[in-house]
Amino acid sequence: MAKFYGVGTGPGASDLLTIRGKEIIEMVDCLYTPESKKGGKSLALQIVDPYLRTDLTIKQRHFPMVNDWEQKRSAWNEITEEIVADVKKGLNVAFITLGDPMVYSTYSYLLERLSNKIETETVSGISSFCQISNNLQIPLVIDEESYAVLPATADESTIRTALEQISTIVLMKVSTALPKILKILTELELLDHTILVSDSSMDSEKVMIGLNELNEADQLSYFSTMIVYKNRELKGS
Amino acid sequence: MAKFYGVGTGPGASDLLTIRGKEIIEMVDCLYTPESKKGGKSLALQIVDPYLRTDLTIKQRHFPMVNDWEQKRSAWNEITEEIVADVKKGLNVAFITLGDPMVYSTYSYLLERLSNKIETETVSGISSFCQISNNLQIPLVIDEESYAVLPATADESTIRTALEQISTIVLMKVSTALPKILKILTELELLDHTILVSDSSMDSEKVMIGLNELNEADQLSYFSTMIVYKNRELKGS
Repeated sequence: MAKFYGVGTGPGASDLLTIRGKEIIEMVDCLYTPESKKGGKSLALQIVDPYLRTDLTIKQRHFPMVNDWEQKRSAWNEITEEIVADVKKGLNVAFITLGDPMVYSTYSYLLERLSNKIETETVSGISSFCQISNNLQIPLVIDEESYAVLPATADESTIRTALEQISTIVLMKVSTALPKILKILTELELLDHTILVSDSSMDSEKVMIGLNELNEADQLSYFSTMIVYKNRELKGS
Repeated sequence: MAKFYGVGTGPGASDLLTIRGKEIIEMVDCLYTPESKKGGKSLALQIVDPYLRTDLTIKQRHFPMVNDWEQKRSAWNEITEEIVADVKKGLNVAFITLGDPMVYSTYSYLLERLSNKIETETVSGISSFCQISNNLQIPLVIDEESYAVLPATADESTIRTALEQISTIVLMKVSTALPKILKILTELELLDHTILVSDSSMDSEKVMIGLNELNEADQLSYFSTMIVYKNRELKGS
């Protein structure tokens, strides 16, 4: 029976995929990959490049990153129809998504449309903040500690409450909310306890430990994440 | 140059290891594995079993799970000395740990002892709650949502605040704190929004969607996790 697979590619390095994810990509007949800008190169596709069979059909599809929900829904509906048609034809189909499919992924919108129509299976991936923590070898949580993951675009009071209540706080997509985040971290005297990583595990990776040198006008990569380690003394900060 | 590698095995299924983790296990000369009870079988070792070379030296070492910190420190110090000696002899050494090495792992205590003495590298793994969410295909977070990971043994006010402020809450190690957690979830009317999974991705996996049937006297596996999805309607609950 043909099936649809959603596969998390992990943060960027090809060998940070799970073995299950790799084997599914090697097996399927058709691979869908998201393209955020029309004609832009898919980062997810670059990650899985070593595992692509030469006879694999690759369908790079445009997912508009806009505020217009009508436009987004219409794109998801079109891609859903195309995938359902492929699977009903008897093709095994995979869709690849950065990081983990269940964490801030457009894949969720595709999945909710597909799951009543065809059989679906979703394969975990390593989230970027998880890789950042392992790469720097600074534990996210030990013993009775807790951690929270928030979009930097969340409202200021939500971010403040998390920073006050929770031991380790991960702020995703900080590039669009840098002035607000820097203001809060400065007021709570947490700049020394924060790291900023862009393009984790990719060739273009940049790491800043302690944010005293960071300026609110600085331009950050779209894939920028902060981790606020309230309980850790960061070396090099 | 010989080196030490800490490798996250992921939640339980052998093919949920990363490719990098698998390749390191296939390469090293010596593999350390934790054993929680003296003479007990190491779950981490069972997970990586397909990747063990026949000539690999396996050193199963006892990590006491007790409240006596002196006893724990003394065990970590002993294992540290042994690993450092192996690496200085020119052996490549790996240590395996369940889930992700940076999330509630005894590995943190080993790493802080090793990192000034020998070269160390740590490889991410899939956390159990991440696998639970992917397996059930219920997104942890979308759009502006946030999630938090707390030990169920945290104090009641911390858990309550997180449940009130954060969209999705993961409670780890619920087996030892079931009455308290059930009381809080009942009061906040969240039983219908909670799933309970024991032994995720293992043969013995059990899933309960909606907790109305759960009794505070029920005995749960040590590897039991709850996810409270405040924003999701759970099918089957």
